Amino acid sequence: MPSRRDLANAIRILAIDAVQKANIGHPGMPMGMADIAEVLFNDHLKFNPANPEWADRDRFLLSNGHGSMLQYAALHLTGYDMTLEDIKNFRQLHSRTPGHPENTETPGVETTTGPLGQGLANAVGMALGEAVLASQFNTPDHKVIDHRTYCFAGDGCLMEGISHEACSLAGTLGLGKLIVFYDDNGISIDGEVKGWFTDDTPARFEAYGWQVVRNVDGHDAGEINTAIETAKKETHKPTLICCKTVIGYGSPHMKGTAKVHGAPLGDDEVAATRKELGWTDETPFNIPDDIYAAWDHREAGAAVEKSWKDVHDAYVKANPELAAELDRRLSGKMPADWDAGIAQLIESTQADGKRTATRKSSKAVLGAVWNLLPDLFGGSADLSGSNGTDFDGHKPVTAKDYNGNYVYYGVREFGMSAITNGLSLHGGFVPFGATFLTFSDYARNAVRMAALMKSRNVFVYTHDSIGLGEDGPTHQPVEHLASLRLIPNLHVWRPGDDVEVAVAWKTAIERENGPCAIALSRQDVDHQDRDADTVAAIAKGGYVLRDTDGKPDAIVMATGSELELAVAAADQLAGEMAVRVVSMPCVDLFREQSASYRDSVLDPSVTARVAVEAGVSDGWIGYVGPTGQVVGVDQFGLSAPGPEVYKELGVTVEGVVDALRNQAKG
Amino acid sequence: MPSRRDLANAIRILAIDAVQKANIGHPGMPMGMADIAEVLFNDHLKFNPANPEWADRDRFLLSNGHGSMLQYAALHLTGYDMTLEDIKNFRQLHSRTPGHPENTETPGVETTTGPLGQGLANAVGMALGEAVLASQFNTPDHKVIDHRTYCFAGDGCLMEGISHEACSLAGTLGLGKLIVFYDDNGISIDGEVKGWFTDDTPARFEAYGWQVVRNVDGHDAGEINTAIETAKKETHKPTLICCKTVIGYGSPHMKGTAKVHGAPLGDDEVAATRKELGWTDETPFNIPDDIYAAWDHREAGAAVEKSWKDVHDAYVKANPELAAELDRRLSGKMPADWDAGIAQLIESTQADGKRTATRKSSKAVLGAVWNLLPDLFGGSADLSGSNGTDFDGHKPVTAKDYNGNYVYYGVREFGMSAITNGLSLHGGFVPFGATFLTFSDYARNAVRMAALMKSRNVFVYTHDSIGLGEDGPTHQPVEHLASLRLIPNLHVWRPGDDVEVAVAWKTAIERENGPCAIALSRQDVDHQDRDADTVAAIAKGGYVLRDTDGKPDAIVMATGSELELAVAAADQLAGEMAVRVVSMPCVDLFREQSASYRDSVLDPSVTARVAVEAGVSDGWIGYVGPTGQVVGVDQFGLSAPGPEVYKELGVTVEGVVDALRNQAKG
Repeated sequence: MPSRRDLANAIRILAIDAVQKANIGHPGMPMGMADIAEVLFNDHLKFNPANPEWADRDRFLLSNGHGSMLQYAALHLTGYDMTLEDIKNFRQLHSRTPGHPENTETPGVETTTGPLGQGLANAVGMALGEAVLASQFNTPDHKVIDHRTYCFAGDGCLMEGISHEACSLAGTLGLGKLIVFYDDNGISIDGEVKGWFTDDTPARFEAYGWQVVRNVDGHDAGEINTAIETAKKETHKPTLICCKTVIGYGSPHMKGTAKVHGAPLGDDEVAATRKELGWTDETPFNIPDDIYAAWDHREAGAAVEKSWKDVHDAYVKANPELAAELDRRLSGKMPADWDAGIAQLIESTQADGKRTATRKSSKAVLGAVWNLLPDLFGGSADLSGSNGTDFDGHKPVTAKDYNGNYVYYGVREFGMSAITNGLSLHGGFVPFGATFLTFSDYARNAVRMAALMKSRNVFVYTHDSIGLGEDGPTHQPVEHLASLRLIPNLHVWRPGDDVEVAVAWKTAIERENGPCAIALSRQDVDHQDRDADTVAAIAKGGYVLRDTDGKPDAIVMATGSELELAVAAADQLAGEMAVRVVSMPCVDLFREQSASYRDSVLDPSVTARVAVEAGVSDGWIGYVGPTGQVVGVDQFGLSAPGPEVYKELGVTVEGVVDALRNQAKG
Repeated sequence: MPSRRDLANAIRILAIDAVQKANIGHPGMPMGMADIAEVLFNDHLKFNPANPEWADRDRFLLSNGHGSMLQYAALHLTGYDMTLEDIKNFRQLHSRTPGHPENTETPGVETTTGPLGQGLANAVGMALGEAVLASQFNTPDHKVIDHRTYCFAGDGCLMEGISHEACSLAGTLGLGKLIVFYDDNGISIDGEVKGWFTDDTPARFEAYGWQVVRNVDGHDAGEINTAIETAKKETHKPTLICCKTVIGYGSPHMKGTAKVHGAPLGDDEVAATRKELGWTDETPFNIPDDIYAAWDHREAGAAVEKSWKDVHDAYVKANPELAAELDRRLSGKMPADWDAGIAQLIESTQADGKRTATRKSSKAVLGAVWNLLPDLFGGSADLSGSNGTDFDGHKPVTAKDYNGNYVYYGVREFGMSAITNGLSLHGGFVPFGATFLTFSDYARNAVRMAALMKSRNVFVYTHDSIGLGEDGPTHQPVEHLASLRLIPNLHVWRPGDDVEVAVAWKTAIERENGPCAIALSRQDVDHQDRDADTVAAIAKGGYVLRDTDGKPDAIVMATGSELELAVAAADQLAGEMAVRVVSMPCVDLFREQSASYRDSVLDPSVTARVAVEAGVSDGWIGYVGPTGQVVGVDQFGLSAPGPEVYKELGVTVEGVVDALRNQAKG
């Protein structure tokens, strides 16, 4: 019978062979954390390889994602749909074993990692999601939601600032089912971390209110097991298990050095490692049957899911409505009355709308959405009132009561955004998090990750232009709208009035294959008249708001708070020239429309065109064409009352009128 | 004689009156930290109001920049060029008292703050700069560099992840002259922080290796003074002074609540606050003469600078060459042999260049630059070898030896970038920091701040496209080049060969009014032939690399590693069509050229145009025009060998050839 070390060595062998075959990759971490993974997967993790989507599975996240081969090896050995061919195709085009784990490519991979620290924050989000769902759906007799979140993290993750944001909040929220393994191997890419990372990490995490299990020998299965038991017993605090490991464990000449972090061992060292590990089979990728048998979790996994299903069946019988709602929540489908409810909201907003700040319109929409959609789960990075995310009915989650729909995230934009990614990936939630648009910069890579992971998540960004005024250029976004629009698979909404706000939320919430950002004004904006067809066209991202009789002399297009400038300019020019007003609240969606629709809005034969947006003009050049004009802001803003900043920078009705007149002259 | 409290109250009165007059702003922090500022400015801070640029002044940074009125009040009261009219113009257009402190607008303001946590990281950079310069220029007899860095920070700063990155590194580097005051008032915008921020902050900072002075009454001048004395005595560790304060101290009905954070008190509460503080004068902005007299630091400041000048004069006599070099370093001017040296480097690179990765070319350039320019101060966020920043001659700064030119920043992209901003602002350095281009996301707001602050700083971003290959989409930037180009006042370089790398570095280092980013390839690229005029044209940001005899049939433009694709496509089409090849290594600089120059490169009469860049195509639309074509990457990348990813995504010589043929067909 194979020893525990033999089982762990199977991970090591698959990792070094795969990296060797690809001739690129990271063997050091899988070799160092193999023993930990072995104990976790074989003795603690709750999962069924045949059903990676089982709702009550434990979550496993690899925040140090460069060690992807550890996860692929564990998935293969335990019996997931991960073949040896997949392993051999490590890092090859369209394989299921990309260089870093990608949730969209590989069954059993919960999240996409690589950018350090974010997997850890995703784990906080998943643990939060579990706690909230458990509080909302479990009954005294039936714990249908009862799983843990395990996360591997390295020195890099813990150096990153996001580890501070996420772990500090996890401590405050007392997420007792979150268990993080710190791979304390003393090495990062530049060498021995003692030159740049001398934190007393256990003390740091205790300062966050975590339970810390110190000085665990990460190569001793018994110590690892005891540490996990200790972690499981603590239900009111997250646990950090600090594992002393040797990076590249098993490589006689490279272990314990940075050389083994991110490069193949080379054929000689692979052979020497086999010898050092007592692995007698020299055939690459060959795993003895007895080791496969010992790892095989298919039977046990089926049994553990079955026993949960029994609980779930009893739960369904005892609480049919609650169970149906839980199933719906986990499926990500909208409630039955969603379509009618949101349509009614949009219709009434069109009928009764008024001049108001779009952030305030958003708050009203959220209050209404919450009554339709209990999946809504909000929060703000310490700007709840300013962001208008403190909707009617919002209830904060606290360590004492997880049954809420809102998190006060504190001043932690990046942590918040990656936590909401975790909530989305967990299932059961339509999360959103808010800050000022300028500070989307702080969280930018988490927004990118949401887009890459195709996760449903809404990023709410208020104070979306120079219109915020006196707080000045540090707080005035100018490049941010254009910059967010560049992220693939992100839909950026900048609604121009209360009705567009409601449609933006509808569209964002219903989007199933990616995130949305919604940019909202601090200042009041006009409500616009529309007929029913025009209201319906908002969802196309760009549409004719005000048309002319016959062919227009010019087209003016605008977004957000500048829409009213475009309308006023067209009004002012009435009689002088016929100006079509196009509202473009979501350029990304407009791009996805058919060419005929786009041409019906931006008539190619009308080359007199002006775009108005209080931000950098670059993104509009393709829409106004070579002879068109953009009324934008191609410099940093200024500290002064909002209207004065607009005037100083020339984003005014007069500016738009002048531009249109220039255009008409040709 | 006024009491210390009276002196502090002068700050409070100016702050509440200015916020009241502007009808917007943040009175809570100035009211809460006034006593601390009073003790610091009056008894400890080394400064001369008449010379805010005095090299050996103590630095004072307001990381919680929303409390700007505290700083403006202190500048006014101590005698800086900050008039009462300036104070009355708080937050007005083109005033010297913008909503958040801006180093470019206000004498005495060391850095621009507002985006939380970054001022703290700037302070770490300034303290680092002091330590390095002191180690390089002080002699046993003459300490010409000997000042402290003081920083105010609030709960928001300490929640932000960047506080972890910067303060962890400050502990490792043992920056004993850094003294941070934590405004522990228990309140952030959303209310009492105990709901979202329960860190044991003193324990956290002790875990970083800081000295922590706990439980200081932030309203007791004696306790504050003792704490500062304790901080000054510790020379091997930075100090955090934890001050318990009451936000809005003095406001009878709003103190200690979030209401006083960011809104005017209102006339009634202003009056009530005057009464509570025992401030009998009801005239807004009126400060009694005896209080002015007690604050006036002009005489003392002139004396303290004079005594430093005496030391400096003696130093000049004893060490004329060293003194001249220090003066040059602090002036930001290039060394006398810079022009000739860098010209020689560029010339020899053109003559002897070879096919190599631009990150490797960059490493070679840095080795040569270091021999010309001791101001060069580099570093990497744990990717020194990959980034090629470990140039010949690089020497790390450590807690035991500050006499170096390099920092191993650890995996701390945001902290690194804000620290280099602090180094730049301190003076004496041309700093650069490096990471992979994708992870510019992590540091984006610090790049923006560098641009806003007009600071000389170079952001080195290697692995700048899908060409990095197997690490996959998390590591492959696609939107980042276009996105960085949107930041006002940032110059983004993407050199196409070794010669363009050398010119990029020359231009970046010589730029005095803003930062540059330099994007570099992981993979090898061809060296290009050029005559001397063509070499000279590189600095214009865009130029004709290969021209045609007579008018071209088409223009192909490219950057970075795609330049060789453009050249190869033009070669392949030779005989079939005449293709001009334009290299555009710095679009931002090209834009700044005259229209006639730009037209000479991108002949307006040639509408058959193709742009090639392995990134999102949006930014190129304005250059190729409505009928042109962009060979770009408008989706996330893929994990596979780099050449396969290029092929899969169609960024190939064949792709460029096809596009050019299509263009020629019209």
